[in-house]
Amino acid sequence: MALLLYDLCGRDPDLRFSPYCWRAKLALAHKGLAFETVPVPFTRIRDVTEGARTVPVLDDSGRIVRDSFAIALHLDASRPDSLPLFGHEGVVAAARFLEAWTLAALHPLISRMILKDIHDALAPDDQAYFRESREARFGRTLEDVQEGVAALAETFAAALAPVRRTLQHVEWLGGAAPLFPDYVVFGSLQWLAAVHGRLPLEPDDPVARWFENCLDLHGGLGRRAKRAA
Amino acid sequence: MALLLYDLCGRDPDLRFSPYCWRAKLALAHKGLAFETVPVPFTRIRDVTEGARTVPVLDDSGRIVRDSFAIALHLDASRPDSLPLFGHEGVVAAARFLEAWTLAALHPLISRMILKDIHDALAPDDQAYFRESREARFGRTLEDVQEGVAALAETFAAALAPVRRTLQHVEWLGGAAPLFPDYVVFGSLQWLAAVHGRLPLEPDDPVARWFENCLDLHGGLGRRAKRAA
Repeated sequence: MALLLYDLCGRDPDLRFSPYCWRAKLALAHKGLAFETVPVPFTRIRDVTEGARTVPVLDDSGRIVRDSFAIALHLDASRPDSLPLFGHEGVVAAARFLEAWTLAALHPLISRMILKDIHDALAPDDQAYFRESREARFGRTLEDVQEGVAALAETFAAALAPVRRTLQHVEWLGGAAPLFPDYVVFGSLQWLAAVHGRLPLEPDDPVARWFENCLDLHGGLGRRAKRAA
Repeated sequence: MALLLYDLCGRDPDLRFSPYCWRAKLALAHKGLAFETVPVPFTRIRDVTEGARTVPVLDDSGRIVRDSFAIALHLDASRPDSLPLFGHEGVVAAARFLEAWTLAALHPLISRMILKDIHDALAPDDQAYFRESREARFGRTLEDVQEGVAALAETFAAALAPVRRTLQHVEWLGGAAPLFPDYVVFGSLQWLAAVHGRLPLEPDDPVARWFENCLDLHGGLGRRAKRAA
């Protein structure tokens, strides 16, 4: 009956910053499930998860589910009697769109804000792996990629315009109550907040207020998270 | 019992290019409703619609509904027994997000592709209004704004990445069947296709294939549309 979630961590095992792991943790909490997380540094992922290249990995009483979206679908399929994460196939499609939109519109920008800071929060073995893999991906040194949060705060706020405008009409990206679409976008912002210490948004920004509401969900799961800065 | 939709037109009254009017027309057809469109040039909108500043405006047996999203919500609320446009409040929120995303990510780009071409397809009175209002909005002449379709085709294809990635997982933005989220994005692309004559995408692009499937919906309503070029 045990639910174990393998969850990326920094040098401090309590620092959990992966956007995808945050999506999975909110999904588990949304379903009302008790679960434990297993902190995993980058360079231990393959060993600990029996070959998975990325986390989150869910061990659901021996059934292994990889990828945050697959975990959310698995939780709804295997626990049809608890609060749905989707509730309609149109919401599955919407969450897929938000997954793709965050990847295209937010993640490159957040990377430019905090890539070197992530590196600095890792254990030494992870630092070497992270520098090599990310510098290959970006074609530049971490120091060159990172422009910093202050330099990109305005661009970041502008990139969130579709979320801001949506929140003029609905309280949550899931409608009147939070659903997996909220957790998709929340995970991306929690990644930035965990590493930087806070979101670089004005407190009265509707996106900031929605994020604060997300932090309070499910007993304040997101709010209790350790922050690096 | 008459359903009349006031629908923006060019110098040729059969040229209908407004993205918002296309959203409303697909919504009416999705509900299986017989409706007539009333072609309205820009400078006749206020007279014909009793003061509305924009179209679409729906006259539903005397009840006036303005704005494409409000029209879709009205159709589901007033015709609960026909095929839903949303079906779940999470799909309403998703359609709101897509409305905001198209406005932020697609419309400025499409404007830069075809603004002068739209002008050229209008009647003389409309041309004067359109030039003045759009040049004030953009702070440049129409000729300066329009960079052309060829120059921006690659940027346009890249901007559609979230739609393309979503279609790896689902057949429609509404899931297994089209819903209002599909019509939101379709309307924006049909705007470009109507004025330019076609979408500047490779035929095997999943977005192009999805657009073709949208054109075939509801008896080929979108496919029968007149194109300017």
